[in-house]
Amino acid sequence: MSVEEFFDRVISVKLPEDCESLDIIDQTLLPGTVKRINLRTKEELWEAIKKLRVRGAPAIGVAAAEGLAMLAKKIDTADQQEFYRQFKEIADYLATSRPTAVNLFWALNRMDAFCRDHLDLPVDQLKQELIAESRRIREEDVQISRNIGAIGFKIMQQVRKPGQPVGILTHCNAGTLATAKYGTATAPMYTALEQGWAGTDMHVYCDETRPLLQGARLTSFELYNAGITTTLQCDNMVSMLMQQGRIDVVFVGCDRVAANGDAANKIGTSGVAILAKHYGVPFYVCAPSSTIDHDTPTGAQIPIEMRGPDEVTEMWYKERMAPEGVDVFNPAFDVTDHSLITGIITENGLLSAPYEL
Amino acid sequence: MSVEEFFDRVISVKLPEDCESLDIIDQTLLPGTVKRINLRTKEELWEAIKKLRVRGAPAIGVAAAEGLAMLAKKIDTADQQEFYRQFKEIADYLATSRPTAVNLFWALNRMDAFCRDHLDLPVDQLKQELIAESRRIREEDVQISRNIGAIGFKIMQQVRKPGQPVGILTHCNAGTLATAKYGTATAPMYTALEQGWAGTDMHVYCDETRPLLQGARLTSFELYNAGITTTLQCDNMVSMLMQQGRIDVVFVGCDRVAANGDAANKIGTSGVAILAKHYGVPFYVCAPSSTIDHDTPTGAQIPIEMRGPDEVTEMWYKERMAPEGVDVFNPAFDVTDHSLITGIITENGLLSAPYEL
Repeated sequence: MSVEEFFDRVISVKLPEDCESLDIIDQTLLPGTVKRINLRTKEELWEAIKKLRVRGAPAIGVAAAEGLAMLAKKIDTADQQEFYRQFKEIADYLATSRPTAVNLFWALNRMDAFCRDHLDLPVDQLKQELIAESRRIREEDVQISRNIGAIGFKIMQQVRKPGQPVGILTHCNAGTLATAKYGTATAPMYTALEQGWAGTDMHVYCDETRPLLQGARLTSFELYNAGITTTLQCDNMVSMLMQQGRIDVVFVGCDRVAANGDAANKIGTSGVAILAKHYGVPFYVCAPSSTIDHDTPTGAQIPIEMRGPDEVTEMWYKERMAPEGVDVFNPAFDVTDHSLITGIITENGLLSAPYEL
Repeated sequence: MSVEEFFDRVISVKLPEDCESLDIIDQTLLPGTVKRINLRTKEELWEAIKKLRVRGAPAIGVAAAEGLAMLAKKIDTADQQEFYRQFKEIADYLATSRPTAVNLFWALNRMDAFCRDHLDLPVDQLKQELIAESRRIREEDVQISRNIGAIGFKIMQQVRKPGQPVGILTHCNAGTLATAKYGTATAPMYTALEQGWAGTDMHVYCDETRPLLQGARLTSFELYNAGITTTLQCDNMVSMLMQQGRIDVVFVGCDRVAANGDAANKIGTSGVAILAKHYGVPFYVCAPSSTIDHDTPTGAQIPIEMRGPDEVTEMWYKERMAPEGVDVFNPAFDVTDHSLITGIITENGLLSAPYEL
């Protein structure tokens, strides 16, 4: 399978030509079942975002934009003001699906602004323009990943030890499944393949990423299928991997970067960053600039979504893995202090401390 | 339920009066099922140690000693030399069940030496003396935990912030289930209860401890049942707990301490130690002196057991959680560098760097 064929098969979100539905891979079924589903209503789209069927900041942005355009196409009125009222209602509703996903708000706000700017158009033409705008959001995401990949690939070349594959650690899934195409944390790896590296020229270690296991289910799935040498480990094995000198560089994705460079990402990321600092391993955050939130001064102001206990105690298991009634701490994200981050890779270049984002 | 009633219910190993079998809790069935099983043959005992039905360094020592005495009682000969030949054969066989459990060898060697020292006794009397020796090994373990508990309880009183419960982190299970009674890492907590503290005077955070989930299944089970305020979290959430100031002290158990103070314990322990150092949280290893291996200069010489991939990818799960064929890194233990350890609590006192163990 070529890289291009691989991408075609696992792409996270597609808006078919007829724009009657949004076609996504149901990521909650991976890696055992590769099933694509068609979302036709705002409730289905809201549920798909909420339940992580589509996930990853950029993919959520693309799904929200193309999904909103798809839903707007179905609004049954020729009156611009009534059209906008219904459009805004859908956008506001979609915005409630995940409170920490800044890309969700970014995409919805951009579509909203575009809609308001073009309310003078006949509704049928406006609907077509909204679809075109949502497709531009997708194409821009592909270009963002390309740029991040190019910078990350240079770093891979710099840290590579002669005659050895580059040892890379990643956490959670910031892969093709999380974006429109190349991923963010995985963009350097896919770029390497496109630049002619063999899959064996790198060795990517994937944290399984409890509790939702995105690293095991999604990242090891996509990298392994792309032909890259892939090893899966539990989150608590990272210290030993670094102790043994197996990791040359860490690439992680990011949900939100504060103005001082503190980065909120999947729970466990800050621990990986502390281990990397201890062992002297460079730690890079791959972050589209849309993830940077200039209005949030530091990580302390980023709200952290707390999720239900069953994800930890029973969701995946044959039987319940903890006593009934025991309290569970289950934050979805944590904040990595900017002092622990070697650099933030954006589509506009590599940022490093002191951050003035 | 009083502390004493709690201990009676969950004790890991019992040698009944008739000494015809060894009575253990099958820890692989916890927390859903509390089932005690009777081991009658050397194969059953070997399998129980291998499959972690009985686990934890001191509990394995007690099970090996009392189990060996139970099996020796069944040897059908009155000839001392033939008795010793069969006794040694059983001991050597049991020693192959877990290669990293130094307490297993320690207990078997002690029973072996005792047997050789008393080979002049009639076989029937020797069998009784072996049983008595194995019961002394149990009683000594109880006393070891009492001493560790007393030292750890003092530390808890020192780190307690006024008006707040002491926040304690522990990893894996070094609890009553892992020993004859008080546990090692849990001994300070149970000692606090015996000294009159309420369960709400402490708040113990239990790492679930992937891949075998001993923290979720065993530690949160026993602490919650003992009435101690208990929270369960995934291993990758420790950094956030410490970032929020919830952890005042870390107590972990230990499988083997090298002569320089490097400590091998359940995989993930070294990562917790690095996080504790980063956040300024004191990190204590609770280690019976039998765990100290003077013949091993540093942690680098401690062999680390590598276990099968299915524990990570499918063992507990409703369905397989990673793609078929992907490589898995699954070490059972890691080594915590002595520089990261605030102190090693033994039954003989608190040791701290520079270690001359």
